[in-house]
Amino acid sequence: MRTLKRYAVSLGYPLGIGPEILAKAMAEAPTAEWVLFGDEAVIATAFRRWAKRTPPGQKTTIVSVGPSAAIDPMGAQRASLDTAVNAVLEGSCAALVTAPMLREPGARGHTELLATRTGGREAAMLMEADGLRVALATVHVPLRDVPKRLSPQGIASVSRLLATYLEGVLHQKVPRLALLGLNPHNDAGPVTRHAAVRENALLADAVLAARKAGVDLRGPLPADALFASRAKGYQGVVALYHDQGLIPAKLLAGHAALNVTLGLPFARVSPGHGIALDIAGRGVASPRGMIAAMSFIPLLAARWPWN
Amino acid sequence: MRTLKRYAVSLGYPLGIGPEILAKAMAEAPTAEWVLFGDEAVIATAFRRWAKRTPPGQKTTIVSVGPSAAIDPMGAQRASLDTAVNAVLEGSCAALVTAPMLREPGARGHTELLATRTGGREAAMLMEADGLRVALATVHVPLRDVPKRLSPQGIASVSRLLATYLEGVLHQKVPRLALLGLNPHNDAGPVTRHAAVRENALLADAVLAARKAGVDLRGPLPADALFASRAKGYQGVVALYHDQGLIPAKLLAGHAALNVTLGLPFARVSPGHGIALDIAGRGVASPRGMIAAMSFIPLLAARWPWN
Repeated sequence: MRTLKRYAVSLGYPLGIGPEILAKAMAEAPTAEWVLFGDEAVIATAFRRWAKRTPPGQKTTIVSVGPSAAIDPMGAQRASLDTAVNAVLEGSCAALVTAPMLREPGARGHTELLATRTGGREAAMLMEADGLRVALATVHVPLRDVPKRLSPQGIASVSRLLATYLEGVLHQKVPRLALLGLNPHNDAGPVTRHAAVRENALLADAVLAARKAGVDLRGPLPADALFASRAKGYQGVVALYHDQGLIPAKLLAGHAALNVTLGLPFARVSPGHGIALDIAGRGVASPRGMIAAMSFIPLLAARWPWN
Repeated sequence: MRTLKRYAVSLGYPLGIGPEILAKAMAEAPTAEWVLFGDEAVIATAFRRWAKRTPPGQKTTIVSVGPSAAIDPMGAQRASLDTAVNAVLEGSCAALVTAPMLREPGARGHTELLATRTGGREAAMLMEADGLRVALATVHVPLRDVPKRLSPQGIASVSRLLATYLEGVLHQKVPRLALLGLNPHNDAGPVTRHAAVRENALLADAVLAARKAGVDLRGPLPADALFASRAKGYQGVVALYHDQGLIPAKLLAGHAALNVTLGLPFARVSPGHGIALDIAGRGVASPRGMIAAMSFIPLLAARWPWN
């Protein structure tokens, strides 16, 4: 008998829809051993209420960790993520699926936490959305801070991570990437003309830096015009800030958009949606994003280029 | 015999794709008298090269105005727009269709020029995109200036314009509008937490101001989450800056997205795309956006609420 692959699953925010969509998704997920880290009572309740008949061979293992979700939900969330990451780093699980989390103080989400947790290596958030692949140069940064957080080196680094992903996971040879512009139509604008000229120069420098590193990055291209053709002709897109990348990704893929952390020493994927407190516990949450994440992790783990 | 409605058409930037898509669109546009203002030589050449057989009763009138497009294209563009606007303001044409223009110095496009031209009244840019309707609180503003250009009064004003449009043109009773947030997930963020808190407060004030003015504005709502459901449940969306509104509009409608100027004393519509210098003169430009604009103007003119 073939040994089942083991994947670690973090429960995310235990009072959100994570436990519910996990329980529902198990019936349509690929056959594997799914190791769930978290408050056993929460997981058991969710499975009793929402689990469907799973295919033969599907295996669920619960590892009870952390404080009670009812008393300390943030602590439970953190313990679930930490132990799931440990299981992957130690090699007992092949890769990581994360249910949605509540961002920690300082707006730190999975991307920031996982990068820190794995030694602060270069990492970037990627959205996989129905054939559109968007990596973010900045993630949870207030809009007013975006211009000063951009640098040619940072953008070149994200571009390289995205190119490595497209080559390694999707087997695309020398993928062509589009860098989105910062200002409307890349115009220099009426008010801060000099600042906007500098910003355009910074983006041009980023393109040069990426090309020196062997990445076929083009642009900067006005974002609205690029998406009018769904980024046709480009295998990947580098967005400069959160909503610039996430608006098109979610519009295209809805809640089936996937969030992948590029550059980590192991594969990690999550549904692109959040914890949906407004519908938690009511049984109406769609497991579509979680099923998509669980269906993607075997390929992602097998081809992950930063293992 | 019923008198044909007369609509003014500005040629836009004469060396862009405007003349070509106008010539091509005439065959599929509604039957009317289309009065084209611009360099007669440019229009005649475009029609000789690209016009298709028009339906019986379709009428094209050329009014030669302005300098030669070959010698002074920006002057020709401006003269075309000015005379077309005059024709509408004087009542000889019922409404205005504009072909794409090259933005003037200071990044001023149609929205800014037309608002100035008609006495500086409150105006706003709206994108009509396959059932999604997005009005912009700021238009051609560099991203770094967006936060300081927002005000509760300005956002309430745009919301009121959008509601009036939805009621007047689309016959929606008390439309529900969504106000998009500024920062990722509306988080206060790690770096300028205080600024982000102030920004969230400003948006909350905008919602209050709009509701006082009788507009059912909700939010602010995280933009990516709202578009995951295509803004379901909302008849209109108020975006805070250019790309936040135009990325989803163009992704949904492509080059058939339409640009309408809310608040003007006459109806005006334009294809949502630009002058496409890269393909101008080659005969490959799609007239889809121009056909959509010309097909929309009769309804828009008949129901325009600010006449």
